[in-house]
Amino acid sequence: MYEATKRLGAFFKPNSVAVVGATKKIDKAGHVIFKNFVDNKTRQVFKGEIYAVNPNENSILGVKCYPTITKIPDEVELVVVVVPADIVPKTMREAAAKKVKTAVIISAGFGEVGNHELENEVATIAKEAGIRVLGPNCLGVYDSRTGVDMLFLPETKVLTTGDEVVATPRPIPGNIAIVTQSGAFGAAALDYLAGLHTGVSKFVSFGNKIDVDEAEMLRYLLHDEETNVVLLYVEDIRSGRKFLKAGEEITKIKPVVALKSGRTEAGARAAASHTGAIAGSDKIYDAAFEQTGILRAEDMDEFFHAGKALSMQIPAKGKNVGIITDAGGPGIMAVDECGLKGLTVKRFSEKTISKFEKLKADGKLPKFATNLNPIDVTGSVTSEMFELATEILFQDPEVDSIIMLGLHHTPALQEDYVDKVAKVASRYEKPMVACDIGETEMALNIRSRFDKLSIPAYSSPEDAARAMNALVRYGLYLQKKQCLKEYTDSFLRSKRKKYGVKA
Amino acid sequence: MYEATKRLGAFFKPNSVAVVGATKKIDKAGHVIFKNFVDNKTRQVFKGEIYAVNPNENSILGVKCYPTITKIPDEVELVVVVVPADIVPKTMREAAAKKVKTAVIISAGFGEVGNHELENEVATIAKEAGIRVLGPNCLGVYDSRTGVDMLFLPETKVLTTGDEVVATPRPIPGNIAIVTQSGAFGAAALDYLAGLHTGVSKFVSFGNKIDVDEAEMLRYLLHDEETNVVLLYVEDIRSGRKFLKAGEEITKIKPVVALKSGRTEAGARAAASHTGAIAGSDKIYDAAFEQTGILRAEDMDEFFHAGKALSMQIPAKGKNVGIITDAGGPGIMAVDECGLKGLTVKRFSEKTISKFEKLKADGKLPKFATNLNPIDVTGSVTSEMFELATEILFQDPEVDSIIMLGLHHTPALQEDYVDKVAKVASRYEKPMVACDIGETEMALNIRSRFDKLSIPAYSSPEDAARAMNALVRYGLYLQKKQCLKEYTDSFLRSKRKKYGVKA
Repeated sequence: MYEATKRLGAFFKPNSVAVVGATKKIDKAGHVIFKNFVDNKTRQVFKGEIYAVNPNENSILGVKCYPTITKIPDEVELVVVVVPADIVPKTMREAAAKKVKTAVIISAGFGEVGNHELENEVATIAKEAGIRVLGPNCLGVYDSRTGVDMLFLPETKVLTTGDEVVATPRPIPGNIAIVTQSGAFGAAALDYLAGLHTGVSKFVSFGNKIDVDEAEMLRYLLHDEETNVVLLYVEDIRSGRKFLKAGEEITKIKPVVALKSGRTEAGARAAASHTGAIAGSDKIYDAAFEQTGILRAEDMDEFFHAGKALSMQIPAKGKNVGIITDAGGPGIMAVDECGLKGLTVKRFSEKTISKFEKLKADGKLPKFATNLNPIDVTGSVTSEMFELATEILFQDPEVDSIIMLGLHHTPALQEDYVDKVAKVASRYEKPMVACDIGETEMALNIRSRFDKLSIPAYSSPEDAARAMNALVRYGLYLQKKQCLKEYTDSFLRSKRKKYGVKA
Repeated sequence: MYEATKRLGAFFKPNSVAVVGATKKIDKAGHVIFKNFVDNKTRQVFKGEIYAVNPNENSILGVKCYPTITKIPDEVELVVVVVPADIVPKTMREAAAKKVKTAVIISAGFGEVGNHELENEVATIAKEAGIRVLGPNCLGVYDSRTGVDMLFLPETKVLTTGDEVVATPRPIPGNIAIVTQSGAFGAAALDYLAGLHTGVSKFVSFGNKIDVDEAEMLRYLLHDEETNVVLLYVEDIRSGRKFLKAGEEITKIKPVVALKSGRTEAGARAAASHTGAIAGSDKIYDAAFEQTGILRAEDMDEFFHAGKALSMQIPAKGKNVGIITDAGGPGIMAVDECGLKGLTVKRFSEKTISKFEKLKADGKLPKFATNLNPIDVTGSVTSEMFELATEILFQDPEVDSIIMLGLHHTPALQEDYVDKVAKVASRYEKPMVACDIGETEMALNIRSRFDKLSIPAYSSPEDAARAMNALVRYGLYLQKKQCLKEYTDSFLRSKRKKYGVKA
């Protein structure tokens, strides 16, 4: 890793941090961010030193307050800047004088509102002093393990009824990193993933990206041991060549899913008026993502669903999907979506079909189960039938991946089918995703049970097919780059390590 | 309405029903269905007479049991047939002798597994006796108001942990009818809508449709006062002309959303092996839906989302969408999806822009709010700002519909913005849909608050745009048929009636 990139580590795990603009006013970002650090230090999650900087206070939350950064007696590795835009240059000069090496500028009021001169001034100061900068106009950083939390959005809100409810939750620790140009979308992403109990490693919002941008962040995350998958939201990418290089490097080791908005002409116009993004032709982005092996999601749901699939399952070695279902209609819906995405759902081999026929003859599968692909085990399915049928699909060398549609409504099906099917899956090196339709207790239970066993579960057949598509596309890319085996081996090694299974 | 169609009313509100194959064995469909009637009669929801028919029992659940239908002393309007397939002809002959006029044949084992001869025999008996038949091989009927409930799937299941959880819930009463060829998908649909608190009027699963089919059901629902929107799931439509006619008739009065699976070649093959559906070219279906004004959904989520939008909002008079957001990124995502669907998001008129500029100058909107379309009220938004900006969009005659992206994470936004915005919307005749992203408390609260005020809310910007697309497409169809005004007036009248507002 380049020395300059390595230094980005201080954004996520600083030995010492100063919040410039820390305040006692509880509705201010400067208060919320400082309090996050203090709370996480108290809980012994954040291990670094913390300093408050504000000329008008002596102490905040029991922590001594310094009038300027330069008055802090010890070394400061990271400053978080939460002061009005026009004071940011002065703050950055003080940071330079203090030999601070990293800064997150939360403050807004720069290029995004036309203040390019002020933005350039800040960029120049930082560059001359060798300060690596995130922002300005960003939400900063959240690290689920180190206690760095610059999210100044209220974690809870009090409704007009007086009830306090979760408003901007922090997801559990996990292996997905979120890298976002839009802070608002980033906050929404945290809320989305927290609600689905999907874990996050790091969250980075880079806003106007006067220094650190998506390309460099990818380069940094390539080496981040906590991150296995990167979800990247962008409106434009300015560092063309650098981005292509960083993208190609990381995708050999870790999948990256991109949501690039401004796909249509009207969307591009909206993006321009949002962040001044000069998006250029959307086809160029398509080509860039294709070339670098970055998987482009078509919408928000596909973005998150693909990330979840890639964090839990190995990529597929080929395009052919085997589908197992206990509900005919949803089975067809999954086949349709696979077809629309360019995946194949080929008729099973004669060998596989004869295995199903044998089970039917032995009374171990329903007599009327159809078995050409999908295998439809019908509404008479039991957990054992799902187990047997799943094993047959895993054994078929022509089946590269499996979509399991286990609708729980059928009378004889018990939720233990999830465990049985997951156990079968654990014996093979082939990806599987699952689907159960419904929004009440049993459906939620089934899906979260699959998720906990690292088989990503979705609430519609099409969502499951799209998630599988991500595993297929990534697999084909790695194959082209001749590193599929290496990736898969490494993925399985770390999975075995996580679950304490001997290889 | 044709006399024959009118008689379908007995499926939903029979004066008397006999369950043939009622049994004491609690894991049998014949038990569950009979018990549903008994329970709903006890709860005084089901108002008709109920009879059990089973030669081997004297009474079931305290209700006298008859050996055959013919032994029932009183008139029988509807029989529900839950006996093995080979006994169905005998049962139907008895029903004919008893002069029963409607039958739901739940039993499977007919055409769907190759027993065409048996199916034809049953069809002939019914036809000769003038018995209207639903099924065979179906889930039958659920009516949220009359207590008719033939769903034999267990409403709850006991997990291996001993916990009892909801497995196949019944949605609350509402105005959406579900008409489905696939029983399994139908059950999943009930689970989905129940979880989202979306109300259902009637649920009909017609399985092998030897008599009543989707065309006739549409004709019936056209006159059903409880139903305002029809969600239709089909794998094939055999009655071409009849369907086109029924479709054209109903869509002038009520919107119909169709999910037709077997879109791709592989999907059509799967459909053929599921129900023997001879789907034919999918393009023919596209043309048929287009001609009849039936809105075809591209996937399961769009199917439900469009249904919800059409049940809550009037159609749009034109293609141009105004977008209001407090989050730039999601705003662009909505614009993109509108563009992909063929909707326009035109730059606001100078008049509208100058109204926004005035509010900004007066300090009533954030200084940095962009306002070309979307209007981005930024993370500094308050409930009052949303209210003011929304009113301006409703006033703009060039804006045909409004997508409201109110991400709740911003610090100053309170949930009462929902009420304020809904109040503005209630003063205009223009459709609005909403979006908030997130899966934890506040997001769920915001979305359900919108839903309760009849502004359909969605969890992604793209979903909101797709829902709006349904309102636009339906509006354009009605306009072409010169009945948009009539539909809108009637919709608003019934809405005013529902909410007790004077017109």
